[in-house]
Formats: sequence, structure tokens, C-alpha cells
Amino acid sequence: MTISADPLSEYRRVRQWTESLCEPLETEDYVVQSMDDVSPTKWHLAHVSWFFETFILKPEVPGYQPYHPDFEVLFNSYYDTVGEQYPRPRRGHLSRPTVAQIFDYRRHVDRGIDAFVRTADSAALDRVALLFEVGLHHEQQHQELLLMDIKHVLGTNPLRPSYLREAPVRPQIAPDGRSWFEYEGGRVAIGFEGSGFSYDNESPRHDVLLRPFRLASQLVTAEDYQAFMADGGYERPELWLSDGWTTKNREGWRAPLYWFDEGPDWSVYTLAGPRPIEAAEPVCHVSYYEADAFATWAGARLPLEAEWEIVARELPLEGNFVEKQALHPLPSGPRRPDGPSQMFGDVWEWTSSSYAAYPGYRAFEGALGEYNGKFMCSQQVLRGGACVTPQSHMRPTYRNFFYPHQRWQFSGIRLASSL
Amino acid sequence: MTISADPLSEYRRVRQWTESLCEPLETEDYVVQSMDDVSPTKWHLAHVSWFFETFILKPEVPGYQPYHPDFEVLFNSYYDTVGEQYPRPRRGHLSRPTVAQIFDYRRHVDRGIDAFVRTADSAALDRVALLFEVGLHHEQQHQELLLMDIKHVLGTNPLRPSYLREAPVRPQIAPDGRSWFEYEGGRVAIGFEGSGFSYDNESPRHDVLLRPFRLASQLVTAEDYQAFMADGGYERPELWLSDGWTTKNREGWRAPLYWFDEGPDWSVYTLAGPRPIEAAEPVCHVSYYEADAFATWAGARLPLEAEWEIVARELPLEGNFVEKQALHPLPSGPRRPDGPSQMFGDVWEWTSSSYAAYPGYRAFEGALGEYNGKFMCSQQVLRGGACVTPQSHMRPTYRNFFYPHQRWQFSGIRLASSL
Amino acid sequence: MTISADPLSEYRRVRQWTESLCEPLETEDYVVQSMDDVSPTKWHLAHVSWFFETFILKPEVPGYQPYHPDFEVLFNSYYDTVGEQYPRPRRGHLSRPTVAQIFDYRRHVDRGIDAFVRTADSAALDRVALLFEVGLHHEQQHQELLLMDIKHVLGTNPLRPSYLREAPVRPQIAPDGRSWFEYEGGRVAIGFEGSGFSYDNESPRHDVLLRPFRLASQLVTAEDYQAFMADGGYERPELWLSDGWTTKNREGWRAPLYWFDEGPDWSVYTLAGPRPIEAAEPVCHVSYYEADAFATWAGARLPLEAEWEIVARELPLEGNFVEKQALHPLPSGPRRPDGPSQMFGDVWEWTSSSYAAYPGYRAFEGALGEYNGKFMCSQQVLRGGACVTPQSHMRPTYRNFFYPHQRWQFSGIRLASSL
Amino acid sequence: MTISADPLSEYRRVRQWTESLCEPLETEDYVVQSMDDVSPTKWHLAHVSWFFETFILKPEVPGYQPYHPDFEVLFNSYYDTVGEQYPRPRRGHLSRPTVAQIFDYRRHVDRGIDAFVRTADSAALDRVALLFEVGLHHEQQHQELLLMDIKHVLGTNPLRPSYLREAPVRPQIAPDGRSWFEYEGGRVAIGFEGSGFSYDNESPRHDVLLRPFRLASQLVTAEDYQAFMADGGYERPELWLSDGWTTKNREGWRAPLYWFDEGPDWSVYTLAGPRPIEAAEPVCHVSYYEADAFATWAGARLPLEAEWEIVARELPLEGNFVEKQALHPLPSGPRRPDGPSQMFGDVWEWTSSSYAAYPGYRAFEGALGEYNGKFMCSQQVLRGGACVTPQSHMRPTYRNFFYPHQRWQFSGIRLASSL
Repeated sequence: MTISADPLSEYRRVRQWTESLCEPLETEDYVVQSMDDVSPTKWHLAHVSWFFETFILKPEVPGYQPYHPDFEVLFNSYYDTVGEQYPRPRRGHLSRPTVAQIFDYRRHVDRGIDAFVRTADSAALDRVALLFEVGLHHEQQHQELLLMDIKHVLGTNPLRPSYLREAPVRPQIAPDGRSWFEYEGGRVAIGFEGSGFSYDNESPRHDVLLRPFRLASQLVTAEDYQAFMADGGYERPELWLSDGWTTKNREGWRAPLYWFDEGPDWSVYTLAGPRPIEAAEPVCHVSYYEADAFATWAGARLPLEAEWEIVARELPLEGNFVEKQALHPLPSGPRRPDGPSQMFGDVWEWTSSSYAAYPGYRAFEGALGEYNGKFMCSQQVLRGGACVTPQSHMRPTYRNFFYPHQRWQFSGIRLASSL
Repeated sequence: MTISADPLSEYRRVRQWTESLCEPLETEDYVVQSMDDVSPTKWHLAHVSWFFETFILKPEVPGYQPYHPDFEVLFNSYYDTVGEQYPRPRRGHLSRPTVAQIFDYRRHVDRGIDAFVRTADSAALDRVALLFEVGLHHEQQHQELLLMDIKHVLGTNPLRPSYLREAPVRPQIAPDGRSWFEYEGGRVAIGFEGSGFSYDNESPRHDVLLRPFRLASQLVTAEDYQAFMADGGYERPELWLSDGWTTKNREGWRAPLYWFDEGPDWSVYTLAGPRPIEAAEPVCHVSYYEADAFATWAGARLPLEAEWEIVARELPLEGNFVEKQALHPLPSGPRRPDGPSQMFGDVWEWTSSSYAAYPGYRAFEGALGEYNGKFMCSQQVLRGGACVTPQSHMRPTYRNFFYPHQRWQFSGIRLASSL
Repeated sequence: MTISADPLSEYRRVRQWTESLCEPLETEDYVVQSMDDVSPTKWHLAHVSWFFETFILKPEVPGYQPYHPDFEVLFNSYYDTVGEQYPRPRRGHLSRPTVAQIFDYRRHVDRGIDAFVRTADSAALDRVALLFEVGLHHEQQHQELLLMDIKHVLGTNPLRPSYLREAPVRPQIAPDGRSWFEYEGGRVAIGFEGSGFSYDNESPRHDVLLRPFRLASQLVTAEDYQAFMADGGYERPELWLSDGWTTKNREGWRAPLYWFDEGPDWSVYTLAGPRPIEAAEPVCHVSYYEADAFATWAGARLPLEAEWEIVARELPLEGNFVEKQALHPLPSGPRRPDGPSQMFGDVWEWTSSSYAAYPGYRAFEGALGEYNGKFMCSQQVLRGGACVTPQSHMRPTYRNFFYPHQRWQFSGIRLASSL
Repeated sequence: MTISADPLSEYRRVRQWTESLCEPLETEDYVVQSMDDVSPTKWHLAHVSWFFETFILKPEVPGYQPYHPDFEVLFNSYYDTVGEQYPRPRRGHLSRPTVAQIFDYRRHVDRGIDAFVRTADSAALDRVALLFEVGLHHEQQHQELLLMDIKHVLGTNPLRPSYLREAPVRPQIAPDGRSWFEYEGGRVAIGFEGSGFSYDNESPRHDVLLRPFRLASQLVTAEDYQAFMADGGYERPELWLSDGWTTKNREGWRAPLYWFDEGPDWSVYTLAGPRPIEAAEPVCHVSYYEADAFATWAGARLPLEAEWEIVARELPLEGNFVEKQALHPLPSGPRRPDGPSQMFGDVWEWTSSSYAAYPGYRAFEGALGEYNGKFMCSQQVLRGGACVTPQSHMRPTYRNFFYPHQRWQFSGIRLASSL
């Protein structure tokens, strides 16, 4: 792998986008960790810089002066082979370094990268090519995490402040209603192949067998989900996985995260603030347990990741991604002729595939080996990206993964069934 | 499905075996729950009777008089559709019903079943045929659980009392050492097909694709595992899954469950009491996390359940099962020509397959639908049965499942790798 | 201090009484620990023997052979200076030693004590005199604990089995209703003085100043307490201590322990089994928080321990103690002329005095120093003994102590107020 | 009680001092809650304003417009009779209201109070006189809490940033070493009497009996405490209260809070940043458990609050209070002739008196009744004020109280013993 023709311009574009996401925030918003899964915004800003500093500047730049000796521990997320980490649940206990200091740290790393790329010989550039590219994709992932996390910080605040200064206009085109697209299945190849970037967990491309199946033409809507709720969905154990039933009871769930019913009807907190539920909007912020229970209730199931992939890759990679700045899933609009709508963007689609190594999987070399492989246990794959994902970050082979109980990510439901 | 030719004799055989397993116990041993996963022996004795009472006697026998009104709640394990359950972590808080009362309850149910089978018409017998058969297989599963649980009760007691009155003679035939058997893979069918009994989760039979692979000729031995430990296996994060590393640290694991090093060398608690580790015995009572870390350290991986199944079904279904009364895994003996040794019996073999529905899976009807399907999340499949499993309970398609952190079951390691 | 004239006969009497308390138990009942505060009956039986073995036989008998090397750890309650202790919350995880073995252990210690007392010279007897006497009083305390604990084991079992084979006849004499006795207070001396036995925490006798006060003529009854409940006592934060309000909410308390309302009216579990509440019986098994909230609601307060003591010591030391075998508090009967009724026996009376050292307090020497002193923090004093306390164990100066949230002891309420 | 001659100038002085304490802070510092006991600075700023708004402006000012409807819940600390409270452990989850909004809230309340005091008739002023005065003393208490809390926020941050821009000069006068002052005790009166302000818990003045005693001439120093540590103080159970030993082990304590030994010697974090321990500085930030263990080790005990009070009230009420801006305890300097040094200021002195009502105690009326009385359980009294206490807030009769395990307050040790 060699570094791209104009690596610095891509670097600047990605780094700049991260900072633009912070533009609506008050200083206080950067600091808070509203649950263990959430990281403060300023931690994200520092951690993605730590990544470039640790994996490129420190090993490659002779005499490189790290910005601060403690940052190696403070902003290491989970790289045990790099060293010790500040305890994750206490990230919100740190008022210092301040936001201003962290922006200064970013500048320090940016200058370092700039100087390095301009002056390094081609051997060095080749050596870091993968790390550099991973660093940018890594920062894109944290752009999404930043939005997920700030939504949790603001959305669980009793004041429910809006992140967006102005609510985006939402299209009022009603969807056609759910229908199905049918597929033959058979022996198909999935996984990444080709010349662009991909994560280790998308490879190798390999064949799988699929039975004939169908996929819903659109995502499950809020209206669909309210029917499930009205039908006692949250009180009927026969619909739920055992762990799901236990979790639901312990947590007191009775609706998706960010839904609330202070008045007679359900409302939803969005990054543009709270508002009434729209019937046609895709349900979002559901756990795997809820997605599975809904599918059981609907007499269907969740798709396998292979089913999703072979359908999605035939469709244009476009949709409601972060660049649209809706920051919330949109109604599907009319049925499209060539396949299901909303396969890309809007919400991450829970699949019934547990997150596991593809046959012949090999992790990245070195510390990057901790990037994906060590999480291949007890998590489920989600596909397609969401309204907070950068479009350039997405691929049909892209595998996201979360624990079945998690729901602060923008996760939704597409139904499938066997023919 | 129709009930077998002589259902009562099979019923009596299974029921009797359960009770014979209790023969070495003191009354006190029946009562204790040494951790949440463990159930007291007397709870097992009652619960399996509750199963016949709840699913056959109550619905089928007009005017059936339940033994005790509270038993419906006390001895319901997890059937939410049947009703409320006494909290699992407090099963060891119940001194009553006494052991004698529970044996009396068993007699009551036995008389009920006996009368029912003798007098029911063929329509009723057909109606309960599956329930009856599941009831017996269910009781066999609890026979194994009973041994797992009593081992935990006695083995975590500082006195480390023996369950067996007399230690079984152990063969002293050294194994040949680990070698490999190679397999082509390809498109193969797995899952149950045929006329005998199987659980819903073994069906439907379906094709999968396998790459060429090899399986180790024998289980990982205590000596192998000690080499891993000596090489810092428990201190090297790069070998571990992320959840595994966290769990190991929190629990303070530094060896398999039941290994202890009060003297200079490692000893092991067995159902015949404590004794020094034997180099050639299969390592047992390891979690999935430990199994996976060992495989990574060994430059191999754990087998897929499909890989295991297509190899195992070509081998005779025989091995060190509970009927041998060794109650501990045995050294493999010399390499056999026709395939890997110890595929059946000795220890349950962790696979890298997460426990999920086969394509087209349909759960049992009614309350039995809770038997297997609702656990298809966050667990791993284990194959082959162990030295505490009844041989008649085993099939090449049999799928056992545990959470990755659990290790009080008789679980061990077989290595695999891709070719 | 010298040992009493016939120490062995007292020893045998106390030891025998302990065992007679176990007579109604099933073997299973000896094993269970229904919450962390509870110890299994067999643990009590062993621990009190451990006390004699550890503090008398081991140091005094040359060549004494301890019954079992592990018992030193297993049955040490909290004597850090003696050594390590088996973790308290796991006492119910031990099925072994069996009940029979523990009775055998008792015999072993009894034979040792018998031989020692018969053969020791007077210097040795003098040396152990205090330990011997403390050992007997210690065993009496565990007789009460044993009854408290077995009540919890049986009373929290959904079957609510009776401990007593036969319910004792309960007198039906209605009390006269609550009135008050008035006292001048002033400079009074409290604490133990004299020649008999007392614990270190009752000394030294010292003067305190008391304002004029009054004490209720009888204990708070179930009827009184139900009036508090009916008046929203459990829902009115202004009546409660802050810690009490938090505890009540967390635990979901809405009545005393062992009260339940499965039918329309409240019932109570007693050691003779469940039965309807009697209006005139003293309320029992309330925490300090509940006692304090009740007193606040009643416009009164709880007595100081000094107030209690100077009144009680003028009254005959008699009452509903364990020897009466009622094992439950009794109605007060008619008002007595010489002072409040029920000062001794029935229920331990919560005082508003926190458990602290008397001025000039000196703990027992050696390991016995851990007996009382190290608990002088965060607990409240209770006075007077209960229906499960041996009468011979009681003194007007006796100080019992529990944490404010505890209520499995036989604790009740006597009101006081200032004049 | 009538409001003071110039209430508004006192109001402004106190309110202004609160804000001046925030002057060194970064915006981020206002937000963090580093443990459950700590509140974010901005929460303190709002809560003390909420107090004036809730208890004066809302009831007294017709048509008063509360600043924000949600603030009633958000900034209620523990007044159950006022209404619901936002959960304390999540105070650090709130990025909004921002710091600027909270300062705006303060201005709103200040304007309201100003208008009210200027325009209210004398009946209204009389009605609020106590509330107004309590409001100011309450704010002074939160000034101290603010400093305690921000010290915890900054001091547990791995960067250990300084709160003070400049370290105060510390006097280098060595103390004379510990000696004793002896007192006769006898029948003495303690508690508040007179015309100024005092809390309800300081009354009524009443007589107590004291034995002859002595008090140490100075506080226990860091050097003294290091001798205790060096003598195995943290490893000797015989020195500790039972709860203390358990807490110490669970928390892993081996030195006072804010002491750390990254190098060979112990350092201490102060509000002026980290620095080496000074031998002569009073030990600070110890729990009651540690104070008691130290006293036991030293062959002494902690004073009773009455002992402390009758000595302290004969001494000038002056010392190292917050106005000195040392913000850390200072060495005692030479022995003074008239009594022990450092009785006021420097550190709160743990007493062996549990926090309880004085005989005849009556709580403030109304919601203020929750101010002190409901905490009279399981806490210990501390006396004398500390280097973060406003001097004008202190009285010889002032009773502070904390749980025995708490140590983030500026608490230290003075030894006493009986003669």
C-alpha cells in the first residue's frame, strides 16, 4: 500500500470535519460522560490525535517531542500492547486538559503530520501508508461516536437542549408502506475485494450459502414500532430473547431510547431537540434485543449480514449520511424499483449474524491488530451506516458491531424472512 | 412423533439414574448453591419432576392433584410463559422442602406418569409424545448439571471433599502427542436428519461451505496448557479477546477452574478429590476466553461447529461418558487411524461458532419453545459431550452452549487450523 | 476473677441448651444462609465450640490435638488477631462439615474442656476464668442469634414452615393501653458495678445527667404501628432520618419484617408459623429507622440508654425470655404499679444512644479485646433482651447493638419524651 | 428574630465571595463530579441561589417568575418536603445549564432579593429573617464544599493541576512538639446560648459531665502520621474499628487522601498543586477510621465534642481560615500559654461523639427542619473549622458532621486522653 497522491489534503479534510462537528457545542458539552459507553467530546478530539502521534509521529519522527507525557495514558482507548489506559468510566472526571489545550494538542499533531509527510522519504511513507489511512478512517468513526455521545449527553439532560442551532427541514413524502424484495440466495461471495481501503474484518472475500430470502422494502417505521408496543410487545416474554427479557426488566425499557411520553403521545429527542414522533420515520436507537423481539412479533426475522451485503452492493451507495446534515433518519419515500430503500444511511441495521472472523481472517499487524479482532465475541453485526456516518466511510462490506444491549448508536430494524 | 414402544421402562431407567447420582451425597450437599449458576441438587431433583407435572400431568390428567401449590413457582426454571419463577440466585436459601419431601414429590410424579401412560388413549399418548421424550432428555441434561453443580459445591469448599467414595482407576497409557488430521471441507450438510430424537436447535439439516482445515488428533492436555501458563499466557493481552482480558483480570484467573497450587506444583480438584495434575489429561474447566487465548498462543484456532460435526459423525459414538464413571477426562491413548481421538466424551469442546439458529430454524411449539431458542444470543457452541454426559444423550449434531465466561461445565480445547 | 464453684455443670447446661434449640430442625435447616447477616445453624454450633478450643484448649492444654486444621479459619467469626477468616457471605456455601461432624466436633471440645477443668491446677483455672465465663455468655448470645437466623431462613422461605412443632398458647389478656411513667432524671450513675459477670462495654460505672423524662408504660403494639402505616408513615419523608428514607426506598419496606398482606389483612410470620396480626402484640422486627420514624410520628422520641437503665434496674428482672418458649413477644397485660411493663424480655428496645465507649472504657485484654470495642461506630444501643434471649444472660446494664438498617433481630419500640 | 440592620450588604458580601472562589477556575472545572459525594462547582452556584428562590422569593414575592421551571428539581439537594430531586450521582452528567446561564441565574435571584428586601414590609422581613440568615450561612457552607469538591476534581486528575494561580508563602516556624493541656472536667454546660445566629443542632445549651482529661497542644502532624504508617498502622487490625478495617481494605487505603508516593518520599496534593510533605504540617484528609486507629496506636483517644468545646470557647476565635487564603493547614508554631493551638481553623477535628440531638433539641420549623435533624444517625461530629471555612461562619458551639468513611473534607486529628 502506498500513501495517496495528496494525503495531506485528505488529512486536513477529515480533521477539519471533526472540528466542524464541535462548532455548535458549549465548552461544558465537551466535558461530560453521561454513561460508561459515552466519551466526552474532548476525549474524542484528543484520542484521534493520540492515534496519529502514537502510531506515526513517535515511531517515525526522530526526536519527536510528544505534546504531554501523560497523554499516552489518558488518551489510549484500549491498546493494551501500547500500554496502560486511564479507566474508561472516569473519562468524564477530567476537567483538564481543557478544551483549548486539546485543540492546541490537535494543532501540535497536525503540524507534526504535515512536516512528516512533506519531508519523509518514500520508504517511510510506504511504511506508514496503512497507519495513515487507518488513522483517517478511525477519525471518521470517532466523528460518528462523537455525535452518538453528544446526543446522549444532551438527550438525557432534563433540559433536552438541541445540538443543532436550527432544525433541518424534513421531507414530508409518505412512504409506500412495507413490501418485500425476493432473492434467490445460493452460493455467493461476500467480503471485501479490490484496491481501496477496507478494515481487516471485511476480509477475506469468501463464499457462503444462502437460502432464498426476502428483505423488506424499507426500514421499520415508528408507526410499525408503536403497533408492537400497543400490542404488548414489551410485556410478552415469548417474543424476547432470554437475555433481552432480563435486560429490559432491569433497565425498565418500554420504548426506544430517546422516546418519551410526558404528554399523551410519544415524543422523540433528536439532535435538533425534542418533537412529536413522525409515523413514517424509521425507528432508531433500539437494542438488538428489541429488534429481535420486534421481528419475532412481526413473524419475520433479522437479515443475515450476507443477505444484506449481496443486496446492498447492487444498489447505489447513497443515502441519508452525515453530509446531508439531517442527523436523524428520514422516511423512506416511495418504493424504488431496483431494491429496498434506505439500505445505506439513516440507521445501522441489526443483523442476526454475530460478529466473528471470516474464514481465513488475519488481523492487521502490530498494535493495529487490536483494532477489530479482539472484539469478535458476544457482539452482533450491523450494516449500512447511519445518518451520522460519513458517506465516504461506508462500503457494502463494512461491518459495524455492538453488544446486543446497546442502543445509543443510531440502530434500527430491517425485516427479512426465508422463502 | 409417537411414544416409544416401552416408554415407561425408559422413563424409569432415566429417573433411576438421576437418583443413583445422588447416592454418594450427604443431605447437606443437596441444599447448597455455591454461585448463581449452580442449583442445589434437590432443586434439580424437583425441577425435572416439575417438568413432567407441568407439561404432561396438569394438562392431560383430569382432576390431577398437584403435589404442592407452591412448587409451580419454586421449581420453574425459566418458563416465562408458564408463570412466575422463584429468583434463581436464592435457590440455595431454601431449606424446605426437605430432601425427603422432594423424593416424595418424585414418587408422586412417577405414580402419575405411570398411571397416565398405562391408561391414556393413543390420541393422548401421541399428543404428549414429544413432551415425554423431551422430558427424559431434559432430565439427562440435569443429570450432567447436577454433577457440574455438585462438583462446584464440593470443589470450592476449603475441605475439598470427594464426591466419589472411591477414586476410579485411571489408565496410564501415554498419548502419542498431538498431530493433525486434514479435511477438504467443501459444501457439506450439517444438522439433524432422521427418525430418532433431536432438539429443535439441531435442525434443519442444511449445507454449509467449509475451507480445507485440520483438526488436532487429541484434546489439549494439562501439559500443553501449563506450557501456555509458563509462557505468560495469563499476562499477555495480545493473546486475549477484549472481554476475556477484562474478565480474567476482574476474576483473578491464573489457571483453569479447580486447579490450585498450594504446594510447589499444580493440583486439580476432581470428583474423586484433589490430586496432582497429570500431564496427559485433557485440560478441563476453561472458559471460551481461555480456550481462545490458548489457541491464539498455539498459532491455531478453535474449530467451527460444522468442521467438528462432519469429522465426528464418521467416528463411532463412544468415549469417556458418564457411564464409565470416571467423571474426569482421560488421556487420549494412542493415535487412532480413522480420525481424531476423544471427539466424544471427556470434555465439551469449545467451538468458534456462536450459538445461533440454523437457517429455517423453528422452535418447538408452545412453552417448549422457550427450551432452546431464547438463548440464541451471546453464547458459544460446544460439541461432543463430556465425562459427565450420558452417552445415550449424545448425537454428532448435538449443540451445547455456554456463555464465554463460564467454566464450571466440563469444557476443554481442541485445536483446528485452516489449510 | 476465679472460675465458679461448679463450672462444668454450668458449661453443660449452656451447651445442652444450644443443642436443644436445634431439636426441631431438619438437617437441611442447619445449612442455609438466607442473607449475609445470617449464619447457618451449623456454623453457630461450630463457632461457639471453636471459641473454647481457640481461647482455652489450644493455649492451655499441652499437646492438644485440634479437631480439624481447617476449622481455625472456617469458624473464626471476626478475630483478626487470631487469623484469617472464611468469608462471611459464603458461610452458606459449605455443605461440609456435615451436621453430624459438627456435633462430633462439639463432643471433642466438650471432652477437652471436661478433662481440662478436672485436671488443671488452680493457676490455670484462674488464668482462663474470664475466658471460660465469656465463652458461656458468648454461646448464649449465639443461642439468640441461632433463633434470629433460623427465623429468617424459615420465614423468608415461600413455604413459611414453622420452627416450633406446636404453637405455644398465647394469653388473651388485653393491655390497659399506653400511659406514661415520669422520672426526675438528674445526676445518675449507670453501668455495671458488682461481683457478677458483665461485658467490658458495660463499664465503668459513671455518672450522667438526665433531664426529667417519661417512659411509655408498655411497648408499641401492632395496632399502634398499623395506625402509623395507615397514616402514610412509610410515605412521609418528614418523619424519617435521611439514611432511613433512602434505605426504605431501596429495600421497598412498607411494614416490619415478617409482616405480609397476602389477604386483605396483615399477617405475621412467627417461629410457630404464620398467623394474623394480634392488635395487642408488641411490634417487632423494626429497624432503628422505622422506630425513629414511628416515634416522630407519635410526637415522642426513643429513650436514651441511661433513661432506660435507671428505670429498668428498679424492676424485677423477669419477663418473656427464651425459657418461656413463647419465642414471640406477648401483649403487656394490665399496667403494673411500679413502673413500665415489658422492660425485660419480649423485644430489644431501640434507644437513641449510639453505641460508644463509656468514659474510661477499657477493652478486655488480648484477642477478647475484639469482642465489643471494635464495633463502637455507626450502631445503636438496644436494651432489655427479647423473647429469644436467655434470662440468665440479661442484666439491666446489658448493651446490645445493631446497625440502624438491621431488623432481623427481635427489636421493638418503647416511646419516651422529655418533660 | 429580625433581619440585620444592613442585610443586603451582608448578602452581597457572601454572594460575592462565592463567586470570587470561582475566579481561578476554567469553564471545564465547573462541570465535573469526580465522585458521588462531590458536586460540580456550577451545581453549588445554582443550588445556593435555588435556596433563596425557593424559601424566600417564591413564597414571599407575589407573581415571582422563577428563572426556569426545571431548576426546582435540578438544584434541590435533599429537601424531600419541597419535592423531587435530580439524582445526586448524576449531577456531573449535566453540561447544561452552562456556567454562563448559572451566573445569569444568580443575577436573577440577586435582583429578586434586592427588590424584595428594599420593598418588603417589616412583617415580611420578620417572617423571612431566619430563612435569610440561614440562606447566607448555607451559602458559606457551600463555599467550603466548593473548595473541598474542586480539590477532589483537580487532585484526582492525573495532571494534578493547581487551583491557586500562585502558591501562598508558607511559614517555616517549627512547632514545639506535642505536649498536653489538662482540664478538670466536671459538670459543664455546652451548646449555643445568646443572641447571634446558630443552627438548631447547637441547642439547647445543656449540662454534661466530664471526667478530667487532657488535650494535645497541637494537631497531629504529617510526621506523627508517618510514624504510624511506618509502624504498620495500615496493616494492624487490632488498631482499627471493624468497619474501618473493612473499608480500608476495600478502598486500598495506605495513606491519607491526596498523599502519593510516586518517588521515594511522600508528596501531597494541595490546592496550590503537589509538593513534598512537610513534617510539621497537620495531617489532613483522614477518615474517622484513620483518626481513631491513629489515636489507638498513640495510646490516646479522640476528644468528646464537649471536651473540645469547653476548651475552645476560652480561646480567641482566630486561626487559619479561608480568609487567610492558605487553603491548607499550617504548622502550629510555638506552644501558646493559654491552651492548645490550632483549635480553630486549619482542619476539622474528628471527635469521638456521634452526631445526635442535644437533649431537648427542636428542629427548625418547616422545610428547614430537614437542614440538620434528619442526618442525626451514623455520623461523627467534627469541630473547629478548617482552612477552607469562612471565619465568620465559625462558633465554638458549631457542629459539623461526616460519615466515618469520608475524608475529602479537610479533617484532621487532635488527641485527647483521660486523666
